[in-house]
Amino acid sequence: MSKGPIIILVEPQLGENIGMAARAMANFGLHELRLVRPRENWLNQKTEAAAAGADFVLHGATLYDSLKEAIADLNFVYATTARERGQGKPVHGPTDAASNLKIRIDEGEKVGVLFGRERTGLENSDIALTDAICTYPIDPGFSSLNLSQAVLIMGYAFRLAGNDATLPFGQKTRWPPAERGAVLNFFDYLDEKLEERGFFRPANKKHRMSMNLRNILLRIGMDEQDLRTLRGMIVRLVEGPRVPYSKQRKREAAEKAARDTSQDDET
Amino acid sequence: MSKGPIIILVEPQLGENIGMAARAMANFGLHELRLVRPRENWLNQKTEAAAAGADFVLHGATLYDSLKEAIADLNFVYATTARERGQGKPVHGPTDAASNLKIRIDEGEKVGVLFGRERTGLENSDIALTDAICTYPIDPGFSSLNLSQAVLIMGYAFRLAGNDATLPFGQKTRWPPAERGAVLNFFDYLDEKLEERGFFRPANKKHRMSMNLRNILLRIGMDEQDLRTLRGMIVRLVEGPRVPYSKQRKREAAEKAARDTSQDDET
Repeated sequence: MSKGPIIILVEPQLGENIGMAARAMANFGLHELRLVRPRENWLNQKTEAAAAGADFVLHGATLYDSLKEAIADLNFVYATTARERGQGKPVHGPTDAASNLKIRIDEGEKVGVLFGRERTGLENSDIALTDAICTYPIDPGFSSLNLSQAVLIMGYAFRLAGNDATLPFGQKTRWPPAERGAVLNFFDYLDEKLEERGFFRPANKKHRMSMNLRNILLRIGMDEQDLRTLRGMIVRLVEGPRVPYSKQRKREAAEKAARDTSQDDET
Repeated sequence: MSKGPIIILVEPQLGENIGMAARAMANFGLHELRLVRPRENWLNQKTEAAAAGADFVLHGATLYDSLKEAIADLNFVYATTARERGQGKPVHGPTDAASNLKIRIDEGEKVGVLFGRERTGLENSDIALTDAICTYPIDPGFSSLNLSQAVLIMGYAFRLAGNDATLPFGQKTRWPPAERGAVLNFFDYLDEKLEERGFFRPANKKHRMSMNLRNILLRIGMDEQDLRTLRGMIVRLVEGPRVPYSKQRKREAAEKAARDTSQDDET
Protein backbone atom coordinates (compact mmCIF):
# COMPACT_ATOMS: atom_id res chain seq x y z
CA MET A 1 0.00 0.00 0.00
CA SER A 2 1.53 3.23 -1.19
CA LYS A 3 0.77 6.37 0.78
CA GLY A 4 1.51 8.55 -2.23
CA PRO A 5 -0.29 9.01 -5.52
CA ILE A 6 -0.13 6.15 -8.01
CA ILE A 7 2.03 7.05 -11.01
CA ILE A 8 0.56 6.01 -14.36
CA LEU A 9 2.66 6.12 -17.54
CA VAL A 10 0.60 6.04 -20.72
CA GLU A 11 2.30 4.25 -23.63
CA PRO A 12 5.89 4.93 -22.58
CA GLN A 13 8.30 4.17 -25.41
CA LEU A 14 11.73 3.89 -23.78
CA GLY A 15 12.69 1.36 -21.15
CA GLU A 16 15.26 3.79 -19.82
CA ASN A 17 12.60 6.35 -19.05
CA ILE A 18 10.50 3.77 -17.22
CA GLY A 19 13.55 2.73 -15.20
CA MET A 20 14.48 6.32 -14.37
CA ALA A 21 10.89 7.09 -13.45
CA ALA A 22 10.91 4.13 -11.04
CA ARG A 23 14.13 5.42 -9.51
CA ALA A 24 12.72 8.96 -9.20
CA MET A 25 9.60 7.57 -7.50
CA ALA A 26 11.69 5.64 -4.99
CA ASN A 27 13.74 8.76 -4.26
CA PHE A 28 10.71 10.53 -2.88
CA GLY A 29 8.83 7.58 -1.43
CA LEU A 30 6.30 6.83 -4.20
CA HIS A 31 5.96 3.09 -4.71
CA GLU A 32 3.07 2.24 -7.00
CA LEU A 33 3.68 2.34 -10.76
CA ARG A 34 1.19 1.45 -13.49
CA LEU A 35 1.99 1.15 -17.19
CA VAL A 36 -0.60 1.46 -19.94
CA ARG A 37 0.44 -0.35 -23.13
CA PRO A 38 4.20 0.15 -22.80
CA ARG A 39 6.27 -0.69 -25.86
CA GLU A 40 7.00 -4.39 -26.28
CA ASN A 41 10.14 -5.60 -24.52
CA TRP A 42 10.07 -2.51 -22.31
CA LEU A 43 11.67 -4.44 -19.47
CA ASN A 44 15.21 -4.85 -20.71
CA GLN A 45 18.77 -4.36 -19.51
CA LYS A 46 18.62 -0.59 -20.00
CA THR A 47 15.44 -0.37 -17.97
CA GLU A 48 17.03 -2.25 -15.10
CA ALA A 49 20.20 -0.17 -15.25
CA ALA A 50 18.22 3.07 -15.24
CA ALA A 51 16.20 1.95 -12.22
CA ALA A 52 19.51 1.80 -10.31
CA GLY A 53 18.16 -0.54 -7.67
CA ALA A 54 14.58 0.70 -7.44
CA ASP A 55 13.50 -2.87 -8.24
CA PHE A 56 10.61 -2.90 -5.80
CA VAL A 57 8.99 -0.14 -7.86
CA LEU A 58 9.97 -1.45 -11.30
CA HIS A 59 9.09 -5.10 -10.73
CA GLY A 60 6.02 -4.18 -8.75
CA ALA A 61 4.64 -2.25 -11.75
CA THR A 62 1.28 -3.45 -13.06
CA LEU A 63 0.35 -3.46 -16.76
CA TYR A 64 -2.92 -2.41 -18.35
CA ASP A 65 -4.36 -2.61 -21.83
CA SER A 66 -6.23 0.64 -21.53
CA LEU A 67 -6.13 3.83 -19.53
CA LYS A 68 -9.72 3.25 -18.51
CA GLU A 69 -8.75 0.01 -16.77
CA ALA A 70 -5.64 1.57 -15.25
CA ILE A 71 -7.64 4.22 -13.40
CA ALA A 72 -10.82 2.20 -12.74
CA ASP A 73 -10.18 1.83 -8.99
CA LEU A 74 -9.10 5.43 -8.41
CA ASN A 75 -11.11 8.27 -6.92
CA PHE A 76 -9.23 11.23 -8.32
CA VAL A 77 -6.80 11.58 -11.24
CA TYR A 78 -4.51 14.37 -12.43
CA ALA A 79 -3.33 14.63 -16.03
CA THR A 80 0.07 16.26 -16.47
CA THR A 81 0.52 18.38 -19.56
CA ALA A 82 2.63 21.29 -20.70
CA ARG A 83 -0.08 22.67 -23.01
CA GLU A 84 -3.52 24.07 -22.44
CA ARG A 85 -6.13 21.66 -23.77
CA GLY A 86 -9.32 23.68 -23.79
CA GLN A 87 -11.15 21.12 -21.68
CA GLY A 88 -12.23 23.49 -18.96
CA LYS A 89 -10.59 21.46 -16.19
CA PRO A 90 -9.05 22.95 -13.06
CA VAL A 91 -5.33 23.63 -13.55
CA HIS A 92 -2.92 23.28 -10.64
CA GLY A 93 0.83 23.65 -10.24
CA PRO A 94 2.76 20.82 -8.55
CA THR A 95 2.57 22.42 -5.10
CA ASP A 96 -1.20 22.79 -5.11
CA ALA A 97 -1.71 19.46 -6.83
CA ALA A 98 0.46 17.70 -4.25
CA SER A 99 -1.39 19.34 -1.41
CA ASN A 100 -4.73 18.33 -2.94
CA LEU A 101 -3.50 14.74 -3.40
CA LYS A 102 -2.25 14.61 0.17
CA ILE A 103 -5.59 15.70 1.60
CA ARG A 104 -7.45 13.15 -0.50
CA ILE A 105 -5.09 10.33 0.47
CA ASP A 106 -5.45 11.25 4.14
CA GLU A 107 -9.21 10.98 3.69
CA GLY A 108 -8.86 7.47 2.29
CA GLU A 109 -9.09 8.17 -1.46
CA LYS A 110 -7.02 6.38 -4.08
CA VAL A 111 -5.44 8.96 -6.35
CA GLY A 112 -3.23 8.91 -9.43
CA VAL A 113 -1.22 11.10 -11.74
CA LEU A 114 -0.99 10.45 -15.50
CA PHE A 115 2.08 11.05 -17.63
CA GLY A 116 1.91 10.83 -21.41
CA ARG A 117 4.10 9.54 -24.24
CA GLU A 118 7.64 10.87 -24.57
CA ARG A 119 7.05 12.73 -27.84
CA THR A 120 3.40 13.59 -27.87
CA GLY A 121 2.26 13.59 -24.26
CA LEU A 122 -1.31 12.75 -23.31
CA GLU A 123 -4.03 12.79 -25.93
CA ASN A 124 -7.13 14.86 -25.40
CA SER A 125 -9.12 11.65 -25.02
CA ASP A 126 -6.79 10.61 -22.16
CA ILE A 127 -7.19 13.94 -20.45
CA ALA A 128 -10.95 13.71 -20.80
CA LEU A 129 -10.88 10.83 -18.29
CA THR A 130 -9.24 12.89 -15.56
CA ASP A 131 -10.43 15.35 -12.93
CA ALA A 132 -7.86 18.08 -13.23
CA ILE A 133 -4.71 19.17 -14.96
CA CYS A 134 -1.30 19.55 -13.34
CA THR A 135 1.20 21.68 -15.22
CA TYR A 136 4.67 22.81 -14.18
CA PRO A 137 6.12 26.33 -13.95
CA ILE A 138 8.43 25.54 -16.83
CA ASP A 139 10.30 27.98 -19.07
CA PRO A 140 7.93 28.51 -22.03
CA GLY A 141 11.02 28.88 -24.20
CA PHE A 142 12.09 25.27 -23.49
CA SER A 143 9.18 23.19 -22.33
CA SER A 144 10.27 19.70 -23.39
CA LEU A 145 10.54 17.87 -20.08
CA ASN A 146 11.86 14.32 -19.95
CA LEU A 147 9.27 11.80 -18.76
CA SER A 148 11.22 10.66 -15.71
CA GLN A 149 11.97 14.29 -14.81
CA ALA A 150 8.24 15.02 -14.87
CA VAL A 151 7.65 12.12 -12.50
CA LEU A 152 10.47 13.33 -10.24
CA ILE A 153 8.95 16.79 -9.84
CA MET A 154 5.62 15.27 -8.80
CA GLY A 155 7.40 13.06 -6.25
CA TYR A 156 9.34 16.00 -4.87
CA ALA A 157 6.27 18.24 -4.66
CA PHE A 158 4.34 15.48 -2.91
CA ARG A 159 7.21 14.98 -0.48
CA LEU A 160 7.16 18.67 0.37
CA ALA A 161 3.40 18.56 0.89
CA GLY A 162 3.70 15.65 3.30
CA ASN A 163 5.25 15.28 6.68
CA ASP A 164 8.34 13.78 5.11
CA ALA A 165 9.90 17.02 3.96
CA THR A 166 12.36 17.04 6.82
CA LEU A 167 15.95 16.86 5.66
CA PRO A 168 18.02 13.75 6.36
CA PHE A 169 20.52 15.77 8.42
CA GLY A 170 21.19 19.26 9.76
CA GLN A 171 24.17 21.50 10.50
CA LYS A 172 26.43 19.70 12.92
CA THR A 173 29.26 20.71 15.14
CA ARG A 174 31.46 17.80 16.03
CA TRP A 175 32.45 19.30 19.35
CA PRO A 176 30.49 21.22 21.96
CA PRO A 177 30.23 24.92 21.16
CA ALA A 178 33.09 26.88 22.71
CA GLU A 179 32.40 28.72 25.93
CA ARG A 180 32.20 32.44 25.28
CA GLY A 181 34.76 33.20 28.03
CA ALA A 182 37.37 31.07 26.26
CA VAL A 183 36.58 32.77 22.95
CA LEU A 184 36.92 36.23 24.48
CA ASN A 185 40.22 35.27 26.10
CA PHE A 186 41.44 34.21 22.68
CA PHE A 187 40.40 37.60 21.27
CA ASP A 188 42.32 39.36 24.07
CA TYR A 189 45.41 37.30 23.25
CA LEU A 190 44.98 38.10 19.57
CA ASP A 191 44.58 41.83 20.31
CA GLU A 192 47.77 41.78 22.35
CA LYS A 193 49.80 40.10 19.62
CA LEU A 194 48.35 42.35 16.92
CA GLU A 195 49.17 45.38 19.04
CA GLU A 196 52.80 44.20 19.39
CA ARG A 197 53.00 43.69 15.62
CA GLY A 198 51.59 47.10 14.78
CA PHE A 199 48.30 45.95 13.26
CA PHE A 200 46.24 48.68 14.86
CA ARG A 201 47.15 51.73 12.81
CA PRO A 202 46.21 54.53 13.20
CA ALA A 203 46.15 54.06 16.97
CA ASN A 204 42.85 55.89 17.46
CA LYS A 205 41.12 53.27 15.37
CA LYS A 206 42.25 50.43 17.57
CA HIS A 207 38.95 50.02 19.42
CA ARG A 208 36.94 49.90 16.23
CA MET A 209 39.33 47.55 14.44
CA SER A 210 39.39 45.21 17.41
CA MET A 211 35.59 45.19 17.63
CA ASN A 212 35.37 44.54 13.91
CA LEU A 213 37.71 41.55 14.22
CA ARG A 214 35.52 40.10 16.97
CA ASN A 215 32.47 40.46 14.74
CA ILE A 216 34.20 38.73 11.84
CA LEU A 217 35.49 35.83 13.92
CA LEU A 218 32.30 35.35 15.92
CA ARG A 219 30.49 34.61 12.67
CA ILE A 220 32.39 31.31 12.65
CA GLY A 221 30.24 30.04 15.51
CA MET A 222 33.24 28.22 17.02
CA ASP A 223 33.10 24.87 18.67
CA GLU A 224 35.79 23.89 21.18
CA GLN A 225 37.99 22.33 18.52
CA ASP A 226 37.65 25.32 16.17
CA LEU A 227 38.88 27.54 18.97
CA ARG A 228 41.86 25.28 19.66
CA THR A 229 42.68 25.27 15.94
CA LEU A 230 42.50 29.05 15.57
CA ARG A 231 44.51 29.65 18.73
CA GLY A 232 47.10 27.13 17.54
CA MET A 233 47.29 28.88 14.20
CA ILE A 234 47.89 32.31 15.75
CA VAL A 235 50.44 30.95 18.23
CA ARG A 236 52.47 29.36 15.42
CA LEU A 237 52.32 32.52 13.30
CA VAL A 238 53.53 34.56 16.27
CA GLU A 239 56.12 32.21 17.71
CA GLY A 240 57.36 30.49 14.56
CA PRO A 241 58.37 26.84 14.39
CA ARG A 242 58.62 24.78 17.50
CA VAL A 243 62.31 24.03 18.16
CA PRO A 244 63.95 22.03 20.93
CA TYR A 245 64.35 24.13 24.06
CA SER A 246 68.15 24.47 24.02
CA LYS A 247 68.19 25.61 20.39
CA GLN A 248 65.31 27.94 21.10
CA ARG A 249 67.29 29.63 23.90
CA LYS A 250 70.23 30.23 21.57
CA ARG A 251 67.97 31.50 18.83
CA GLU A 252 66.21 33.85 21.22
CA ALA A 253 69.51 35.28 22.31
CA ALA A 254 70.49 35.87 18.69
CA GLU A 255 67.15 37.44 17.92
CA LYS A 256 67.42 39.67 20.93
CA ALA A 257 70.76 40.88 19.63
CA ALA A 258 69.13 41.58 16.30
CA ARG A 259 66.35 43.53 17.98
CA ASP A 260 68.84 45.54 20.00
CA THR A 261 70.64 46.48 16.83
CA SER A 262 67.51 47.72 15.20
CA GLN A 263 66.40 49.56 18.32
CA ASP A 264 69.72 51.33 18.39
CA ASP A 265 68.89 52.60 14.94
CA GLU A 266 65.66 54.07 16.12
CA THR A 267 67.12 56.17 18.93
CA MET B 1 24.15 36.83 -18.11
CA SER B 2 22.24 34.12 -16.28
CA LYS B 3 19.69 35.20 -13.72
CA GLY B 4 19.82 31.87 -11.95
CA PRO B 5 22.55 30.09 -10.04
CA ILE B 6 25.45 28.69 -12.06
CA ILE B 7 25.37 24.89 -12.12
CA ILE B 8 28.77 23.26 -11.65
CA LEU B 9 29.24 19.54 -12.29
CA VAL B 10 32.40 18.13 -10.74
CA GLU B 11 33.98 15.28 -12.72
CA PRO B 12 30.80 14.03 -14.38
CA GLN B 13 31.38 10.63 -15.96
CA LEU B 14 28.48 10.14 -18.37
CA GLY B 15 27.74 12.36 -21.34
CA GLU B 16 24.08 11.43 -21.08
CA ASN B 17 23.88 12.87 -17.60
CA ILE B 18 25.51 16.10 -18.73
CA GLY B 19 23.03 16.33 -21.60
CA MET B 20 20.06 15.61 -19.37
CA ALA B 21 21.32 18.12 -16.81
CA ALA B 22 21.52 20.77 -19.56
CA ARG B 23 17.98 19.94 -20.59
CA ALA B 24 16.75 20.08 -16.98
CA MET B 25 18.42 23.48 -16.56
CA ALA B 26 16.75 24.83 -19.68
CA ASN B 27 13.38 23.54 -18.45
CA PHE B 28 13.50 25.87 -15.49
CA GLY B 29 15.40 28.77 -17.01
CA LEU B 30 18.94 28.08 -15.75
CA HIS B 31 21.47 28.80 -18.47
CA GLU B 32 25.04 28.74 -17.16
CA LEU B 33 26.75 25.35 -16.90
CA ARG B 34 30.33 24.72 -15.80
CA LEU B 35 32.14 21.39 -15.96
CA VAL B 36 35.16 20.52 -13.84
CA ARG B 37 37.32 17.80 -15.42
CA PRO B 38 34.53 15.94 -17.23
CA ARG B 39 35.49 12.57 -18.63
CA GLU B 40 37.30 12.71 -21.95
CA ASN B 41 35.00 12.72 -24.99
CA TRP B 42 32.12 13.80 -22.80
CA LEU B 43 30.54 15.65 -25.70
CA ASN B 44 29.31 12.82 -27.89
CA GLN B 45 26.16 11.76 -29.70
CA LYS B 46 24.51 10.52 -26.52
CA THR B 47 25.16 13.82 -24.81
CA GLU B 48 23.55 15.73 -27.65
CA ALA B 49 20.57 13.38 -27.76
CA ALA B 50 20.03 13.68 -24.01
CA ALA B 51 20.13 17.47 -24.19
CA ALA B 52 17.09 17.25 -26.50
CA GLY B 53 17.66 20.67 -27.98
CA ALA B 54 19.06 22.49 -24.95
CA ASP B 55 22.08 23.30 -27.08
CA PHE B 56 22.47 26.84 -25.80
CA VAL B 57 23.15 25.40 -22.35
CA LEU B 58 25.23 22.41 -23.47
CA HIS B 59 27.42 24.24 -25.99
CA GLY B 60 27.67 27.28 -23.77
CA ALA B 61 29.19 25.13 -21.00
CA THR B 62 32.66 26.19 -19.85
CA LEU B 63 35.37 23.73 -18.80
CA TYR B 64 37.73 23.99 -15.85
CA ASP B 65 40.75 22.04 -14.69
CA SER B 66 39.98 22.52 -11.04
CA LEU B 67 37.05 23.30 -8.83
CA LYS B 68 38.99 26.22 -7.43
CA GLU B 69 39.10 27.88 -10.84
CA ALA B 70 35.48 27.04 -11.54
CA ILE B 71 34.26 28.97 -8.51
CA ALA B 72 36.88 31.73 -8.41
CA ASP B 73 34.51 34.49 -9.59
CA LEU B 74 31.58 33.43 -7.41
CA ASN B 75 30.48 34.99 -4.15
CA PHE B 76 28.46 32.16 -2.66
CA VAL B 77 28.49 28.43 -3.34
CA TYR B 78 26.27 25.55 -2.27
CA ALA B 79 27.47 21.94 -2.22
CA THR B 80 24.76 19.34 -2.80
CA THR B 81 25.15 16.10 -0.90
CA ALA B 82 22.93 13.32 0.40
CA ARG B 83 25.19 12.57 3.35
CA GLU B 84 26.23 14.50 6.41
CA ARG B 85 29.92 15.39 6.14
CA GLY B 86 30.86 16.61 9.56
CA GLN B 87 32.09 19.94 8.23
CA GLY B 88 29.86 22.11 10.38
CA LYS B 89 28.35 24.02 7.45
CA PRO B 90 24.81 25.37 7.38
CA VAL B 91 22.39 22.84 5.84
CA HIS B 92 19.44 23.98 3.73
CA GLY B 93 16.72 22.16 1.82
CA PRO B 94 16.07 23.15 -1.82
CA THR B 95 13.32 25.63 -0.93
CA ASP B 96 15.44 27.59 1.53
CA ALA B 97 18.54 27.28 -0.63
CA ALA B 98 16.65 28.60 -3.65
CA SER B 99 15.27 31.50 -1.68
CA ASN B 100 18.74 32.33 -0.36
CA LEU B 101 20.20 32.14 -3.90
CA LYS B 102 17.41 34.34 -5.24
CA ILE B 103 18.06 37.06 -2.67
CA ARG B 104 21.79 37.02 -3.35
CA ILE B 105 21.33 37.17 -7.12
CA ASP B 106 18.91 40.08 -6.74
CA GLU B 107 21.61 41.86 -4.76
CA GLY B 108 24.13 41.36 -7.56
CA GLU B 109 26.05 38.35 -6.29
CA LYS B 110 27.28 35.52 -8.50
CA VAL B 111 26.22 32.23 -6.99
CA GLY B 112 26.69 28.58 -7.85
CA VAL B 113 25.59 25.09 -6.91
CA LEU B 114 27.96 22.11 -7.03
CA PHE B 115 26.99 18.58 -8.00
CA GLY B 116 29.41 15.70 -7.54
CA ARG B 117 30.38 12.56 -9.42
CA GLU B 118 27.67 10.05 -10.32
CA ARG B 119 28.89 7.29 -8.04
CA THR B 120 30.69 9.04 -5.26
CA GLY B 121 29.32 12.56 -5.12
CA LEU B 122 31.43 15.45 -3.90
CA GLU B 123 34.62 14.81 -1.97
CA ASN B 124 35.10 16.39 1.42
CA SER B 125 37.82 18.60 -0.02
CA ASP B 126 35.32 19.89 -2.64
CA ILE B 127 32.77 20.66 0.04
CA ALA B 128 35.43 22.44 2.08
CA LEU B 129 35.50 25.19 -0.58
CA THR B 130 31.77 25.96 -0.27
CA ASP B 131 29.67 28.07 2.05
CA ALA B 132 26.76 25.80 2.77
CA ILE B 133 25.22 22.43 2.03
CA CYS B 134 21.99 21.82 0.17
CA THR B 135 20.39 18.42 0.71
CA TYR B 136 17.04 17.09 -0.48
CA PRO B 137 14.16 15.66 1.56
CA ILE B 138 14.76 12.29 -0.02
CA ASP B 139 13.57 8.87 1.18
CA PRO B 140 16.44 7.66 3.39
CA GLY B 141 15.60 4.14 2.21
CA PHE B 142 16.49 5.00 -1.40
CA SER B 143 18.74 7.99 -1.56
CA SER B 144 20.56 7.41 -4.85
CA LEU B 145 19.48 10.37 -6.96
CA ASN B 146 20.51 10.60 -10.62
CA LEU B 147 22.79 13.58 -11.36
CA SER B 148 20.44 15.26 -13.82
CA GLN B 149 17.51 14.68 -11.45
CA ALA B 150 19.43 16.47 -8.72
CA VAL B 151 20.01 19.41 -11.07
CA LEU B 152 16.33 19.42 -12.02
CA ILE B 153 15.15 19.72 -8.42
CA MET B 154 17.41 22.71 -7.90
CA GLY B 155 16.05 24.35 -11.06
CA TYR B 156 12.49 23.69 -10.01
CA ALA B 157 13.04 24.97 -6.48
CA PHE B 158 14.70 28.09 -7.87
CA ARG B 159 11.80 28.61 -10.23
CA LEU B 160 9.37 28.43 -7.33
CA ALA B 161 11.47 30.88 -5.33
CA GLY B 162 11.08 33.35 -8.19
CA ASN B 163 7.31 33.17 -8.19
CA ASP B 164 6.78 32.83 -4.47
CA ALA B 165 7.00 35.59 -1.97
CA THR B 166 10.66 35.65 -1.06
CA LEU B 167 11.61 37.24 2.23
CA PRO B 168 11.88 41.02 2.12
CA PHE B 169 15.56 40.92 3.06
CA GLY B 170 18.40 38.54 3.84
CA GLN B 171 21.53 38.67 5.98
CA LYS B 172 23.41 41.77 4.87
CA THR B 173 27.08 42.46 4.41
CA ARG B 174 28.26 46.06 4.32
CA TRP B 175 30.66 45.40 1.47
CA PRO B 176 30.26 43.25 -1.59
CA PRO B 177 30.89 39.60 -0.79
CA ALA B 178 34.48 38.58 -1.52
CA GLU B 179 35.11 36.70 -4.73
CA ARG B 180 35.80 33.06 -4.00
CA GLY B 181 39.09 33.15 -5.94
CA ALA B 182 40.46 35.87 -3.69
CA VAL B 183 39.38 33.95 -0.61
CA LEU B 184 41.01 30.75 -1.85
CA ASN B 185 44.22 32.64 -2.65
CA PHE B 186 44.22 33.94 0.90
CA PHE B 187 43.89 30.38 2.18
CA ASP B 188 46.84 29.33 0.02
CA TYR B 189 48.92 32.18 1.46
CA LEU B 190 47.86 31.20 4.96
CA ASP B 191 48.75 27.55 4.30
CA GLU B 192 52.18 28.59 3.07
CA LYS B 193 52.91 30.69 6.13
CA LEU B 194 51.57 28.04 8.49
CA GLU B 195 53.73 25.46 6.74
CA GLU B 196 56.80 27.66 7.23
CA ARG B 197 55.93 28.08 10.87
CA GLY B 198 55.45 24.39 11.49
CA PHE B 199 51.70 24.47 12.15
CA PHE B 200 50.98 21.32 10.21
CA ARG B 201 52.20 18.63 12.55
CA PRO B 202 52.25 15.72 12.06
CA ALA B 203 52.95 16.28 8.36
CA ASN B 204 50.56 13.57 7.18
CA LYS B 205 47.68 15.49 8.71
CA LYS B 206 48.42 18.59 6.68
CA HIS B 207 45.67 18.07 4.10
CA ARG B 208 43.05 17.49 6.72
CA MET B 209 44.16 20.37 8.92
CA SER B 210 44.22 22.70 5.95
CA MET B 211 40.74 21.63 4.85
CA ASN B 212 39.48 22.06 8.39
CA LEU B 213 40.85 25.62 8.53
CA ARG B 214 39.03 26.44 5.27
CA ASN B 215 35.82 25.14 6.74
CA ILE B 216 36.22 27.21 9.88
CA LEU B 217 37.07 30.43 8.03
CA LEU B 218 34.46 30.02 5.28
CA ARG B 219 31.79 30.09 7.96
CA ILE B 220 32.57 33.79 8.29
CA GLY B 221 30.94 34.44 4.92
CA MET B 222 33.54 37.11 4.13
CA ASP B 223 32.83 40.36 2.38
CA GLU B 224 35.66 42.18 0.61
CA GLN B 225 36.55 44.20 3.69
CA ASP B 226 36.53 41.15 5.97
CA LEU B 227 39.00 39.49 3.63
CA ARG B 228 41.28 42.57 3.65
CA THR B 229 41.11 42.65 7.45
CA LEU B 230 41.95 38.99 7.89
CA ARG B 231 44.74 39.11 5.34
CA GLY B 232 46.13 42.22 7.01
CA MET B 233 46.01 40.49 10.37
CA ILE B 234 47.91 37.45 9.14
CA VAL B 235 50.48 39.58 7.27
CA ARG B 236 51.23 41.60 10.42
CA LEU B 237 51.51 38.46 12.55
CA VAL B 238 53.92 36.99 10.01
CA GLU B 239 55.96 40.05 9.15
CA GLY B 240 55.88 41.95 12.39
CA PRO B 241 55.66 45.76 12.69
CA ARG B 242 55.99 47.96 9.67
CA VAL B 243 59.20 50.00 9.91
CA PRO B 244 60.66 52.64 7.62
CA TYR B 245 62.49 51.12 4.67
CA SER B 246 66.08 51.97 5.65
CA LYS B 247 65.59 50.62 9.14
CA GLN B 248 63.88 47.57 7.76
CA ARG B 249 66.91 46.79 5.60
CA LYS B 250 69.24 46.94 8.58
CA ARG B 251 66.89 44.83 10.66
CA GLU B 252 66.61 42.26 7.95
CA ALA B 253 70.37 41.99 7.78
CA ALA B 254 70.55 41.53 11.53
CA GLU B 255 67.78 38.98 11.48
CA LYS B 256 69.50 37.10 8.73
CA ALA B 257 72.60 36.94 10.86
CA ALA B 258 70.47 35.64 13.73
CA ARG B 259 68.92 33.04 11.47
CA ASP B 260 72.33 31.96 10.23
CA THR B 261 73.50 31.53 13.80
CA SER B 262 70.53 29.40 14.70
CA GLN B 263 70.83 27.38 11.52
CA ASP B 264 74.43 26.67 12.36
CA ASP B 265 73.21 25.26 15.63
CA GLU B 266 70.92 22.88 13.88
CA THR B 267 73.54 21.32 11.65
